[in-house]
Amino acid sequence: MTVPGASVGLGELPLREDLRGRSPYGAPQLDVPVRLNTNENPVPPPPGLVADIVAAVAEIAATLNRYPDRDAVALRTELARYLASATGVGLAVENLWAANGSNEVLQQILQAFGGPGRTALGFEPSYSMHPIIASGTRTEWLPAPRRADFSLDVEAAVDLLGSRRPDVVFVTSPNNPTGQSIPLSDLRALVSAAPGVVVVDEAYAEFSSRESAVHLIEEFPTRVIVSRTMSKAFAFAGGRLGYLAAAPAVVEALLLVRLPYHLSSLTQAAALAALRHATGTLASVRMLAEERDRVVASLTGLGAAVVPSDANFVLFGPFADRAAAWQSYLDHGVLVRDVGIDGHLRVTIGTPAENDAFLAASKEIVP
Amino acid sequence: MTVPGASVGLGELPLREDLRGRSPYGAPQLDVPVRLNTNENPVPPPPGLVADIVAAVAEIAATLNRYPDRDAVALRTELARYLASATGVGLAVENLWAANGSNEVLQQILQAFGGPGRTALGFEPSYSMHPIIASGTRTEWLPAPRRADFSLDVEAAVDLLGSRRPDVVFVTSPNNPTGQSIPLSDLRALVSAAPGVVVVDEAYAEFSSRESAVHLIEEFPTRVIVSRTMSKAFAFAGGRLGYLAAAPAVVEALLLVRLPYHLSSLTQAAALAALRHATGTLASVRMLAEERDRVVASLTGLGAAVVPSDANFVLFGPFADRAAAWQSYLDHGVLVRDVGIDGHLRVTIGTPAENDAFLAASKEIVP
Repeated sequence: MTVPGASVGLGELPLREDLRGRSPYGAPQLDVPVRLNTNENPVPPPPGLVADIVAAVAEIAATLNRYPDRDAVALRTELARYLASATGVGLAVENLWAANGSNEVLQQILQAFGGPGRTALGFEPSYSMHPIIASGTRTEWLPAPRRADFSLDVEAAVDLLGSRRPDVVFVTSPNNPTGQSIPLSDLRALVSAAPGVVVVDEAYAEFSSRESAVHLIEEFPTRVIVSRTMSKAFAFAGGRLGYLAAAPAVVEALLLVRLPYHLSSLTQAAALAALRHATGTLASVRMLAEERDRVVASLTGLGAAVVPSDANFVLFGPFADRAAAWQSYLDHGVLVRDVGIDGHLRVTIGTPAENDAFLAASKEIVP
Repeated sequence: MTVPGASVGLGELPLREDLRGRSPYGAPQLDVPVRLNTNENPVPPPPGLVADIVAAVAEIAATLNRYPDRDAVALRTELARYLASATGVGLAVENLWAANGSNEVLQQILQAFGGPGRTALGFEPSYSMHPIIASGTRTEWLPAPRRADFSLDVEAAVDLLGSRRPDVVFVTSPNNPTGQSIPLSDLRALVSAAPGVVVVDEAYAEFSSRESAVHLIEEFPTRVIVSRTMSKAFAFAGGRLGYLAAAPAVVEALLLVRLPYHLSSLTQAAALAALRHATGTLASVRMLAEERDRVVASLTGLGAAVVPSDANFVLFGPFADRAAAWQSYLDHGVLVRDVGIDGHLRVTIGTPAENDAFLAASKEIVP
């Protein structure tokens, strides 16, 4: 059978010039015994949560012919309740916004506050989707450096914000893929120096004991946006639920750019069910933090250099040939991530058994 | 309790200039006995489909800690199978792409083929999200007229495509909110004249007996993109599943702009379940087409002017004061849509009982 239109290639399409020659984003999705490459929570939803998700979907499924609540009020209310309880900041439904993964949240932020003629700055290496989403919204990307040890030089950063004057600043804390988080006092210094909005990407916040940037919303209502996700701590990567906390006016701004009915009834119902089980799910966060400390100690004992982390992953090295090291792990049945940092690989903290498999492989691979 | 950041308003944010003063899109979501305002399919999923969705979600829920299949291969395969069987065109998985509603599909198309410095043209009145999504992707919108009876003047349109040379053309068939579809021969003339891509928005195609534009993909592989949705005929508005058919290279182009893991495991599983029940669900389409013809005949009998429709809605008038007429329907417990067309309102075709309620109200409201 001939596939209709298969005779033409990408180069023959009237594609935007800036997309020509690019490759799609994405870690390889390989079928490997131990997958430690995308910072997923290795603990699957327990039977009680599965049953609750199924019951919630069963209730909503009979009305799937109707559009979802466009503003996801019930879900945002519960996200506010969770985040208020996790941080001690009295957030309300008006402070919360949700979308299909934090990628969509970030895209909406850049549609509202970035875009053509505007700039976004990030401290690299950091979450590699930040510049990609900037490009997708035609926001000029300004890469800024970190120290050689991947920590953030706050004084230098403050100077840079003053001179480059970016419309949007991304600060990832804990930082992916390096692992360190930023103290609230440093964040306050950055926000004070920023001329536009500062997006604090807290995708991994639950794994850290640092105070959340939501503490800065009342002080800097026009500037602080805190993005979060249920993909990591909540073990809900497949459910795709990202959210943010900010001043109510920021949420109003996002209503101007969001696609109507962007969040399905299924997503809203399942995320609500997952939030009802927050206490149980977040117990896995403590286990993973302990496992992280064990992995760091073991790797260090093997002679590896490990970047300090308070997330659910660890950046480590040094590898003379990181691609070869990545392949060696794969040959041992362990999928880690080559995040493009010279001499380093990133490993997600898995279950104790997965971490044992990773550490056993490391004994042969770490130089 | 004080809401953090509530002291500032939208005007104090560093919002993009072109968003200032705008209001969010959206029909009022009112709690009214008879809701005929958003072209939903009034027939809820039958118990068998609900059970199948619930079983599919139960299966996937235990692995929600893992990211979904980024490329939604199983779902796209079944969408290809459905569309091939519905149209007689031998489409394959490589021809199909899916996203969270056709709005996201259209946004991705404009990110790849539109954007700053490029233009998109549509024949108005048509789907009001087309210019909004163009704006969201910073694509300049070129509004083009229809005839006074809302039909498309193909000769004039061909001339306009030659003179304006838009990068993207939207053709909605059947056209929302007016109802008429376009013959394949006319579409071929438009595509032949278009310098860039032509997006044929077939959200309501199942309600029409016209041949689908997918017949043109093999002839115009670099130019024809056909967008579809499961929101209408499939009674799956709450599930948010839009898709498109095009040459494989077009799908490759969209991989460059899509947000990774944009489509949740829940969405993929539920949509697959809905596709397994396509035959049963699409039976409601025939009922709705018959009801549409009954509503048109009754409205005409009342002296209304009705625009010909082969969709699941009807544009009718004339109303000297359409806002007052809209309110009168609401006072009768019937929610119709004011789509901003002078003298007209749009009514979605509902169940026979809902249509009876609408027609009963019309007896008092149609002048």
